[in-house]
Amino acid sequence: MASCLIGRQLSLCVQKNLWLSAAGCRYVSKAAAKTQVEYDYDGPLMKTTVPGPRSQNVGAVNFFCNYEDSRGNYLVDVDGNRMLDIYTQISSIPIGYNHPALLKLMTNPNNLSTFVNRPALGILPPENFPDKITESLLSIAPSGMTRVQTMACGSCSNENAFKSIFIWYRNKERGHNTPSEEELTSCMTNQAPGCPDLSILSFMGGFHGRTLGCLATTHSKVIHKLDMPSFDWPVAPFPRLKYPLEEFSQENAQEEARCLEEVEDLIVKWRQKGKPVAGIIIEPIQAEGGDNHASPDFFRNLRNISRKHGCAFHVDEIQTGGGCTGKFWAHEHWGMDDPAEIVSFSKKLLTGGYYQKEELQPYRIFNTWMGDPSKNLFLVEVLNVIRRENLLEEVTRSGKALLNGLYELQAQYPGLLSRARGLGTFCAIDVRDAATRDRLLLQARDKGMLLGGCGDQSIRFRPALVFKEYHVHIFLNIFNNVLAQNK
Amino acid sequence: MASCLIGRQLSLCVQKNLWLSAAGCRYVSKAAAKTQVEYDYDGPLMKTTVPGPRSQNVGAVNFFCNYEDSRGNYLVDVDGNRMLDIYTQISSIPIGYNHPALLKLMTNPNNLSTFVNRPALGILPPENFPDKITESLLSIAPSGMTRVQTMACGSCSNENAFKSIFIWYRNKERGHNTPSEEELTSCMTNQAPGCPDLSILSFMGGFHGRTLGCLATTHSKVIHKLDMPSFDWPVAPFPRLKYPLEEFSQENAQEEARCLEEVEDLIVKWRQKGKPVAGIIIEPIQAEGGDNHASPDFFRNLRNISRKHGCAFHVDEIQTGGGCTGKFWAHEHWGMDDPAEIVSFSKKLLTGGYYQKEELQPYRIFNTWMGDPSKNLFLVEVLNVIRRENLLEEVTRSGKALLNGLYELQAQYPGLLSRARGLGTFCAIDVRDAATRDRLLLQARDKGMLLGGCGDQSIRFRPALVFKEYHVHIFLNIFNNVLAQNK
Repeated sequence: MASCLIGRQLSLCVQKNLWLSAAGCRYVSKAAAKTQVEYDYDGPLMKTTVPGPRSQNVGAVNFFCNYEDSRGNYLVDVDGNRMLDIYTQISSIPIGYNHPALLKLMTNPNNLSTFVNRPALGILPPENFPDKITESLLSIAPSGMTRVQTMACGSCSNENAFKSIFIWYRNKERGHNTPSEEELTSCMTNQAPGCPDLSILSFMGGFHGRTLGCLATTHSKVIHKLDMPSFDWPVAPFPRLKYPLEEFSQENAQEEARCLEEVEDLIVKWRQKGKPVAGIIIEPIQAEGGDNHASPDFFRNLRNISRKHGCAFHVDEIQTGGGCTGKFWAHEHWGMDDPAEIVSFSKKLLTGGYYQKEELQPYRIFNTWMGDPSKNLFLVEVLNVIRRENLLEEVTRSGKALLNGLYELQAQYPGLLSRARGLGTFCAIDVRDAATRDRLLLQARDKGMLLGGCGDQSIRFRPALVFKEYHVHIFLNIFNNVLAQNK
Repeated sequence: MASCLIGRQLSLCVQKNLWLSAAGCRYVSKAAAKTQVEYDYDGPLMKTTVPGPRSQNVGAVNFFCNYEDSRGNYLVDVDGNRMLDIYTQISSIPIGYNHPALLKLMTNPNNLSTFVNRPALGILPPENFPDKITESLLSIAPSGMTRVQTMACGSCSNENAFKSIFIWYRNKERGHNTPSEEELTSCMTNQAPGCPDLSILSFMGGFHGRTLGCLATTHSKVIHKLDMPSFDWPVAPFPRLKYPLEEFSQENAQEEARCLEEVEDLIVKWRQKGKPVAGIIIEPIQAEGGDNHASPDFFRNLRNISRKHGCAFHVDEIQTGGGCTGKFWAHEHWGMDDPAEIVSFSKKLLTGGYYQKEELQPYRIFNTWMGDPSKNLFLVEVLNVIRRENLLEEVTRSGKALLNGLYELQAQYPGLLSRARGLGTFCAIDVRDAATRDRLLLQARDKGMLLGGCGDQSIRFRPALVFKEYHVHIFLNIFNNVLAQNK
């Protein structure tokens, strides 16, 4: 009830295009805020421009943070500026800053040893590890997947998933698991047949990490790729759709058909080149590359192509996973029982890792740490909070409010904004050009709102799962003011 | 004084080849143990064979652990077996289990937020991060290195170090930092000249991680390499020396000269192939590959070769770093002011990462987490303990006792043991054959002693830095009994 009221007041505010001081934010009552997210602040509060005097600006550093004072959806910097965080550490904070459930976990003496004694998980796991994995990662396993392997970060997750795919593919090719003497010898010096010329097909605009294997499938920005030796692996076009999707279904379907055809051509071509495609990797929504969507049909057809050609299908949910699309995994929107051979994750899941189907053998994947049980402790609590507070429904609700707000803004500023799009709160909008986008981001920050860019000229929205309709309206209100300055 | 006495008693024990029950260990007084490491146990205590009934044996898992009850040098399993741990989670536990200094850190409320809010360190570091890095990693920086980059694990550290090398090398080749239009375009599809055919030279028997970039420089075991696409990068022979090194200095010098010559030949050959060697990676002691040593002269000459040919010299201290050789970095034993362009670390440092010289630009190395400040909090305390308790001196002392003990055992069991070698407590010994080695490891475990294998037929010793002379004698005593059973 309170939430409705605030929502109406603020959207009224947006419509009237009133200047509303970020610091004062008089339309938001503190009491109402507290009923929403108890440990959250009630609005941004800016004391200086950002980075402020106490932040030293070093290299890529935006500013220095005061994580102790940050709460819920608000990141506080060292100058005491309190910003509504809609970027959340590159989409990696699931339930906001200093969530009481996570702080409580830290004070439980039974948990201390998990933090202090990091095991070599692959050989000497803690007694409770299987239970904790069942409670956490296995409780949210994608359809058809019974196995999960934790890893330290997103890149390691994809690298090891690729390795799992290569082993599976070679065993299929051999028809048995016994390598020849020549394979055993040649692999030690990186040569075929032991190190075969297999490839992973990826998409232009995709991002799958920056270590050399992952990087061969990443094609979003020059700065990631330049000067790095790489593999001659095929790169397919990702559909460039028109938004809103429902208004351009015919053109979009044609564009998707064109891309799928190209995928099949590349698979055939690379097989002929002697570098068969062992796997296809794709994001359900290309994130870093500019929040590019494709239809569930596109993904279902792509999945069928992977089956037809015997390639593993690897869905990279590192940025889309964890609930931000309104479902726990973005690929659930495709409605498939058998969506993939591999689903990789990291970021909001707090630990890296990947799920895989039973037929992919896990036994040769190994490293010293293989993840970190202390991250898994946190994940158990995060999942409890998501369930207890129905956060996926909340995300769907605030996502709708956010996307509707973006539609309104692009109608109001047609020369400035276009292509509003999103699923849950995983939303984006394009700005006239890169320079204007970058300026908008800085101006929004100075008004107490942290946003991120992606692609050439997009703004991406990556709030935590505790980002409510109430916060959407704070955002729309302030962003509207920023836009008015840039008309 | 007490320690000397115990030492004499136990070495007497070894000479007499007496059966000494691991559980009772009557030659060791509890009081003496307590004066040594207060939070440590006083000896192994075995209740079942290992894995015991409560450990489920799944895949590569050795057994399940009770980390709460583990203390100091002793790992306790779920069946209550207490084992002297000389393998320490593949060499990654710096100061033993549940060290009071680390437990205390966890109870300090000021530290909670560092655990609960993992930042995107590259853009939004916590206020105290520069101070914490200065206190920790920069306080132990290798000679000539002023920059450090943290990463999540060892593989990511080497992958990103390679990238740093490639960027540096290409900028040198260009003579400026401005890539051509062709480079900018071609790199997006993994093609030259944007993705150039540069290489990293590595050594047969080396281990540098298992992600695809690292794996192209790893050559220790078939199981790591088979079925994985790789780069055509040069692999040089690592010297196969005779031990003890001081007895075979002439033969060993010849063998090292042969390997160095081969390195230069490979650099020339790969340049002619159009795949110039941008960097050379090497471990100060090949660990996974079988604890293969080389002389300080070898490394100094190799360093000179890298300078002569304009290749970066990358010293991988992931297993050797952190004090186990009696110096903080194993390469300090070479006595060089300018030992390398890059030194990478992980394991005992609790966080991955690498140091680099000023001339290597850090600006294009980035990922979401770029390490984990909570690991760095622990590292600060670990370094405090190392300094306060003079642990490097302790390591030198117990390392001497260990190596002398191994010399004695190989003299006593010439058909069974050979090639005892080591630096600090980073020791190894060869066993007659792989099957006997594996059997010895299991028998030792059942008597309460955890050891690891490496190479084809070696046992490697990787105790924590709190492994004192006292523990050496517990080990020698039990190991002697195991050997007597296998004569």
